[in-house]
Amino acid sequence: MAVPAAAAIFSFPTEKRLVEWGWGWGWSGSSSSLVSWPSIRSQPNPLRADGDGRPLTTNTELFSLSVGAHLIPHPRKVDKGGEDAFLVSSHNGGVIAVADGVSGWAERNVDPSLFSKELMASALSFVADDEVNFDPRMLLKKAHAAIRSVGSATVTIAMLQTDGVLKVANLGDCGLKIIRRGLIIFSTTPQEHYFDCPFQLSSETLSQTSLDAVLSTVQLMEKDIIVMGSDGLFDNVFDKEITSTVAECEDVSEAAKALAELARTHSMDLAFDSPYSMEARSRGFDVPFWKKLVGIRLTGGKLDDITVVVGRVVKMLNSLEGMADMD
Amino acid sequence: MAVPAAAAIFSFPTEKRLVEWGWGWGWSGSSSSLVSWPSIRSQPNPLRADGDGRPLTTNTELFSLSVGAHLIPHPRKVDKGGEDAFLVSSHNGGVIAVADGVSGWAERNVDPSLFSKELMASALSFVADDEVNFDPRMLLKKAHAAIRSVGSATVTIAMLQTDGVLKVANLGDCGLKIIRRGLIIFSTTPQEHYFDCPFQLSSETLSQTSLDAVLSTVQLMEKDIIVMGSDGLFDNVFDKEITSTVAECEDVSEAAKALAELARTHSMDLAFDSPYSMEARSRGFDVPFWKKLVGIRLTGGKLDDITVVVGRVVKMLNSLEGMADMD
Repeated sequence: MAVPAAAAIFSFPTEKRLVEWGWGWGWSGSSSSLVSWPSIRSQPNPLRADGDGRPLTTNTELFSLSVGAHLIPHPRKVDKGGEDAFLVSSHNGGVIAVADGVSGWAERNVDPSLFSKELMASALSFVADDEVNFDPRMLLKKAHAAIRSVGSATVTIAMLQTDGVLKVANLGDCGLKIIRRGLIIFSTTPQEHYFDCPFQLSSETLSQTSLDAVLSTVQLMEKDIIVMGSDGLFDNVFDKEITSTVAECEDVSEAAKALAELARTHSMDLAFDSPYSMEARSRGFDVPFWKKLVGIRLTGGKLDDITVVVGRVVKMLNSLEGMADMD
Repeated sequence: MAVPAAAAIFSFPTEKRLVEWGWGWGWSGSSSSLVSWPSIRSQPNPLRADGDGRPLTTNTELFSLSVGAHLIPHPRKVDKGGEDAFLVSSHNGGVIAVADGVSGWAERNVDPSLFSKELMASALSFVADDEVNFDPRMLLKKAHAAIRSVGSATVTIAMLQTDGVLKVANLGDCGLKIIRRGLIIFSTTPQEHYFDCPFQLSSETLSQTSLDAVLSTVQLMEKDIIVMGSDGLFDNVFDKEITSTVAECEDVSEAAKALAELARTHSMDLAFDSPYSMEARSRGFDVPFWKKLVGIRLTGGKLDDITVVVGRVVKMLNSLEGMADMD
């Protein structure tokens, strides 16, 4: 292992301050096969630093997220917009979440999209709740307790404090990755009971609870990139593709759209050896031996709803200090 | 995705209680190429449940770790026991940690093992500190501030509360995985500046701090298995091999030894396509094209110090209630 050069490992301590600025939020109910959310496209930060990215003063560091999101429903579920849902809120440094309605409920004549959508709407209503207090597992608990839909969902929620501390709660196989200088430095781990049966919040009494969600705390830095998605993203796109795609994009909206479209392309490619098909083979799901004899193997992407939320950490100043400096 | 059967997703809520029982702790300074730590072999729990694993009463659930550890030094570093260090403490539900001294310091005539060993000794002295209060990042902060050795180290620390809550702090490329019913449900993510240069705590001012460690909180259940190790384990052994090896072992000491020996075997196998060689290829480190033409490719394990700590979550009763029931 190498000892890094000093410059490569320098990080500034941060200071706690509060500031808020507005975003939209929402879930996709569109009938289009390409749903983007115009109100949460990458936005100029009204309190932003000067042109070359250096802050106006170096004494106060406040962090916030610039967010882009893109949802592409499963080709057979386009009419109702798919079963994924997401939220984006401007609370404190920013709150983002993705929920994936468990499709098995359709066999019981339940629309799987209702639970995930109500869960996101409920979570949004509690983001500023005093009891939640920046704890995404508490947010999940209150959101779950308040909803009435029948169904279940996997969910990932992340809350950024303005001091740069990101708290992530993950239950099931949605997920979140953090990219710093082109490398993934944090990734949630999918939780499942068995192949294709993830941990899930449910309307049933005997399910996982918010306590089963893994809570992670990560100190973020300016320019860190968050990639959050449903399993439709991570089952179809490898980590290396995620980092290279993000590196090629100009802004977070473009990155979210590019990742979602790459996932869709792979999901419909029968020859692509996707993360999902590799995992399936490693679990013993494979083609019969006589097909292997002629070189056929289990490949292909996984058709699914695809939701991608990309956040970029931006640094801003306390508004009053920033104004004072501009005098 | 599937909706699981009710039985598969049932989990009991837990209740907070305090109980302590003794283990040893240590780091390896042995000159043997096989160092095991006899005092922390799997131990019968003095407050244990009855024969078939059911508790004597169902009202009180307390969790603790049964721990086994195994350290195999790098073949060329056997004389001083390698540059890894670990600790095991009985505090509350149990504390385990692994630190890996960064070998690059040897080029500056510094013994890389001093920093990791002092870091573990220092951490041990603070596990019960009031300020630490079950926060492994705070433990890391205090341990780091108190040591005087020159060098740097990657480190993973995990603290189990008796209510089953495990808190994990990870900085760099040591790591921890949690296995539940044969599946990995949690894994730390290696953090690095560039290939083979991990995040590290250092004697230098301009390094990472405990704030750069990712803190994760996971609610554990009885029989969950924790596999903690230095990169010598994870660079040489795939996840599937970890779960299958653990499943074949009778107890935690056997599992730790089996994993360490598997890692050693792979580390010396030039033909084995290890996680390390796969990662190296994916980063563009590869054999020259003319070697590829004749079918030669970059393979092989990674010679390194190998430390493995395996913990198994055991359920026990509050001692007084247990005693009362046995009357």
